[in-house]
Amino acid sequence: MLPIVCIVGKSNVGKTTLLEGLIAELKRRGYRVATVKHDVHGFEIDQPGKDSWRHAQAGSDAVVISSPQKLALIKRVDHDSSLEEIARLLGDDFDIVLAEGYKNSNMPKIEVHRQALEEGLLCSPDELIAIATDEHLDIPVWQCSLDDTPKLANFIEQTFLTEPKEEAILFVNGNHIPLSPFVRSFIEGTVKGMVSTLKGVDTAKRIDLWIREED
Amino acid sequence: MLPIVCIVGKSNVGKTTLLEGLIAELKRRGYRVATVKHDVHGFEIDQPGKDSWRHAQAGSDAVVISSPQKLALIKRVDHDSSLEEIARLLGDDFDIVLAEGYKNSNMPKIEVHRQALEEGLLCSPDELIAIATDEHLDIPVWQCSLDDTPKLANFIEQTFLTEPKEEAILFVNGNHIPLSPFVRSFIEGTVKGMVSTLKGVDTAKRIDLWIREED
Repeated sequence: MLPIVCIVGKSNVGKTTLLEGLIAELKRRGYRVATVKHDVHGFEIDQPGKDSWRHAQAGSDAVVISSPQKLALIKRVDHDSSLEEIARLLGDDFDIVLAEGYKNSNMPKIEVHRQALEEGLLCSPDELIAIATDEHLDIPVWQCSLDDTPKLANFIEQTFLTEPKEEAILFVNGNHIPLSPFVRSFIEGTVKGMVSTLKGVDTAKRIDLWIREED
Repeated sequence: MLPIVCIVGKSNVGKTTLLEGLIAELKRRGYRVATVKHDVHGFEIDQPGKDSWRHAQAGSDAVVISSPQKLALIKRVDHDSSLEEIARLLGDDFDIVLAEGYKNSNMPKIEVHRQALEEGLLCSPDELIAIATDEHLDIPVWQCSLDDTPKLANFIEQTFLTEPKEEAILFVNGNHIPLSPFVRSFIEGTVKGMVSTLKGVDTAKRIDLWIREED
């Protein structure tokens, strides 16, 4: 399954600006990136008078415009598409999907935060895997500064784009905890052993175990 | 496989106008129609300044804009997509794809023809399954008048959208030849028998046999 990461945050916090930096950084590293923008109001994208626009006006359920450099598909839908549906449409040509918004989806979320926009975070810390912020927040979620795109790209690369190695990586309260070979092997063996007894687990190639303690 | 039909013809012969009528007529009959327009020059579709446009400018390989009524996907490609690739992208949500142009594809083609545009047809008659024309052409291809959209829709419906019945339908020189039950059964049995001996044929649910004689 194509990894999907949502960039969430309040209005005007700078989600698109952060995404622009992140897209450029991930492209520089050679990844194929798809992005998703939710538009609650509906949108007009094709140009009146063009042949493809005339097809749509005549009632076509989907219009494709194909050129040697670009392919566009505009289709009518009867519901708001889920990110899973969008990932299926995108197919296998990409390494990662970055979605702007989608705070109610169950995909991993990174919140963009600015001190100036008061009343804390948009999402509860439990829902977040990372925060790009202009102030340190005293919560156990991985954080980086708003303009440190390379650090955020490293985090995304390590979490979603690196082939699973035969090792355990531990973060506690958002901080990476280095492990000695013995401890690593001990934790890895114990967790793998437990997980392997679970119904529905055949071979566990990648285990992501999140443990959250309520205040 | 989703049926794909190309509407071909010379510049300004009225391909888009014919398509508009055909789309509306097929929609009226309850079919889900997708259309394809080839754009050799490349096209700009998203609007400068919009978030999705900013994603693309930052280097995103594909941008999806999703609303409750419409879904748009704009992706970079490195070659001119074939109609088969486009059909795969469209998936299972449609009954038929109507493509404007694509005269060099190997998909079934219907040519739009006007007497006023001289020097005969764009395609050779061998390549055509039908012609919508404002003059009768003395060639063995099914024809209808330019503005008889219901007749053309009947032809498309019968050829591509009707579940195969257990019967043989014969056209000779573009004319439908009624068959008595005995003759129908005889032709059907003979052709099915021959086809069933061919390598690669398992069960032949639908046989389309085209025989052309050179002048």
